[in-house]
Amino acid sequence: MSSTMNKPHAITCKAAVAWGPGEPLVIEEVQVSPPQPQEIRIKVVSTSLCRSDLTAWETQVIIFLALLAFCLLKDWPGTDTGSFPTMRPFCFKQAIFPRIFGHEASGIVESVGAGVTEFIEGDHVLTVFIGECQTCKHCRSVKSNTCEVLGLERRGVMHSDQQTRFSIKGKPVYHYCAVSSFSEYTVVHSGCAVKVSSVAPLDKICLLSCGLAAGLGAAWNVADISKGSTVVIFGLGTVGLSVAQGAKIRGACRIIGVDTNPEKSEKAKVFGITEFLNPNDCNEPIQQVIKRITDGGADYSFECIGDTGMITTALQSCCDGWGLTVTLGVPKVKPEVAAHYGLFLSGRTLKGTLFGRWKPKSDLPSLLDMYSKKEIMIDEFITHDLQFGDINKAFNLMKEGKCLRCVIHMPN
Amino acid sequence: MSSTMNKPHAITCKAAVAWGPGEPLVIEEVQVSPPQPQEIRIKVVSTSLCRSDLTAWETQVIIFLALLAFCLLKDWPGTDTGSFPTMRPFCFKQAIFPRIFGHEASGIVESVGAGVTEFIEGDHVLTVFIGECQTCKHCRSVKSNTCEVLGLERRGVMHSDQQTRFSIKGKPVYHYCAVSSFSEYTVVHSGCAVKVSSVAPLDKICLLSCGLAAGLGAAWNVADISKGSTVVIFGLGTVGLSVAQGAKIRGACRIIGVDTNPEKSEKAKVFGITEFLNPNDCNEPIQQVIKRITDGGADYSFECIGDTGMITTALQSCCDGWGLTVTLGVPKVKPEVAAHYGLFLSGRTLKGTLFGRWKPKSDLPSLLDMYSKKEIMIDEFITHDLQFGDINKAFNLMKEGKCLRCVIHMPN
Ligand SMILES: [Zn+2]
Ligand SMILES: [Zn+2]
Ligand SMILES: [Zn+2]
Ligand SMILES: [Zn+2]
Repeated sequence: MSSTMNKPHAITCKAAVAWGPGEPLVIEEVQVSPPQPQEIRIKVVSTSLCRSDLTAWETQVIIFLALLAFCLLKDWPGTDTGSFPTMRPFCFKQAIFPRIFGHEASGIVESVGAGVTEFIEGDHVLTVFIGECQTCKHCRSVKSNTCEVLGLERRGVMHSDQQTRFSIKGKPVYHYCAVSSFSEYTVVHSGCAVKVSSVAPLDKICLLSCGLAAGLGAAWNVADISKGSTVVIFGLGTVGLSVAQGAKIRGACRIIGVDTNPEKSEKAKVFGITEFLNPNDCNEPIQQVIKRITDGGADYSFECIGDTGMITTALQSCCDGWGLTVTLGVPKVKPEVAAHYGLFLSGRTLKGTLFGRWKPKSDLPSLLDMYSKKEIMIDEFITHDLQFGDINKAFNLMKEGKCLRCVIHMPN
Repeated sequence: MSSTMNKPHAITCKAAVAWGPGEPLVIEEVQVSPPQPQEIRIKVVSTSLCRSDLTAWETQVIIFLALLAFCLLKDWPGTDTGSFPTMRPFCFKQAIFPRIFGHEASGIVESVGAGVTEFIEGDHVLTVFIGECQTCKHCRSVKSNTCEVLGLERRGVMHSDQQTRFSIKGKPVYHYCAVSSFSEYTVVHSGCAVKVSSVAPLDKICLLSCGLAAGLGAAWNVADISKGSTVVIFGLGTVGLSVAQGAKIRGACRIIGVDTNPEKSEKAKVFGITEFLNPNDCNEPIQQVIKRITDGGADYSFECIGDTGMITTALQSCCDGWGLTVTLGVPKVKPEVAAHYGLFLSGRTLKGTLFGRWKPKSDLPSLLDMYSKKEIMIDEFITHDLQFGDINKAFNLMKEGKCLRCVIHMPN
């Protein structure tokens, strides 16, 4: 491995490479380029598997085909993805492989590119999948975290030059969300990393990189859950249970969790779920059950599955007048949300969010602070600790719904 | 006509009766029952034609057939109208005729039913199409105006007993929104009327009964438009232009009006529209034009047409991060709102509203006060004054897009 000379060299290290959709990852030797201007190279310490990694890995081709079918059946121009430009290549391009997944991670800065003043070698950092340039219109607004410069990057390349920083024998290996933490070393834009205290436990706080923070932010920043309210959460993975945690902290009095996996029920209580509903156990549609037991619907509903049909169900499950549905999931298949206009006319609101509307650099320090004061739980989400060589186990556990977060510990 | 004896009698008076969808109204002699408990009978002074009257009058059967087609093409159970229960009969029942339309109105209390303490004979009132019982969960919440007791009544009957108060030769004549102001006398629930000052001009303030208040409320209560913001309004009828008025008062710096009727352009300026766009004059989709000229999309967009497809366009026309779309219209045909999930994930919000989230009794007095201080415009929305006998002219003017509000003056 190169040390930080005047000019960093390429590093050769191990990375878990996905060669094709759904194929087990293979630990390969990869070359990691030096950080380019405004970038940093990080020695990854811990990285946890998030559902989006799994979804992107297993369903890339399915999504492509499903969208193709969708386009043939519908008049395509009606489905405008223009306002979400990074969706467009996702829909039409072939799956992006070989690729290095992973985006929830902690690590130590190994070297910095030209112009980087915020980080020095040895800094402890979290990676983030949407960055904060701190200068664009959205970064300057308190109302947005959708940075115009460092937004969600779904083309498998770096924001600055649309190139990769990974290669095997000279051939590019693609990134995931411009993070790619399933590698001993990775390169990220300095705007996509957040400096953290050197005493914070890197093997735990990596969870704040994505799902856990997303759930808390949805509960606090987006829904702004009020004391005494009723909340229903569809999907009790890490994101959903982190919404529950956020709702509990805000003093919600009923937090109803909905999941088809009965094994989620026990663990869910830890995070504040007061009632568990399995739609498969109900004789009527789940939204009717919820409306009945909540006297008209919940105050807030959260879609944490990634199913546009469930967004409709979530809208139907919240009440007239002030019912608010927040959608956090990235749908695997049908990209269109559909709902009867009456759901809106009678006063409901539908909001979406990426990363819980946190601005990573501005806001993650406060979450780390809360963790250090034991005001929020992180450790409780970690169901498995795995060595890097066992990374495929994490994918299998998540596919089977048998984990919340698997933390993968990189070799020293 | 009966005067208010100890017990009021039925009144025989003239009403404009719609005998079938799209058929010109016929001025008929009708019997108006005495007010039942908690109801009041009103001598209508002025009533203005709102687009919902027109829509209900002309498209009842079309909606029925369109929904039938929709049900056959789609799996019907998926289209849940359960949360909007009054939609259900609307979808399945035959059109409700004969019927007396009209819901924007002012008048004078002629008699009161048992238990009414809020009104006495001679009180000046506005009618409202959604009432305020002042005791239900929604009336007690500051966040809602969807009264559980006196909500939108679409079955052509009164809330209390599902009966009509109108008849011709003993056969029932149905109500519209439990108001039916196209009659010399009408009966409404006391929760569906608002007392006004006896010096307020009844021939103007009737506009506050629906469209004008709805637009202001959408701008202020629902969107909470902030100073310096960019607003786009789809549909420049009374509702859309009242949104414009509300946006201007809040200090929005750009108020873009979209309408396919070029005649709307001049009048729109009066209410604050700073730019007029006719989609028919554009070589690209209107949402692209708006995104281009606003550098990424408006802060707020309002759908005031009643077209679910236009709700999607409105979402696409507002910006990532904090873009908010408010839908005010009642769609004539396709009841399903559809939008790419990416529009939400990137931070947009979709809200709907009925009557601008005003609670009629609690809030209309403040609007009347603003009008008396010339802080809001009402008179400028009145493009035509018509005698009751010419009521069909109002329907024709609105069908042809040649009016904002036609005020119909009832005989003394
Ligand atoms: Zn930025
Ligand atoms: Zn994630
Ligand atoms: Zn009420
Ligand atoms: Zn109206």
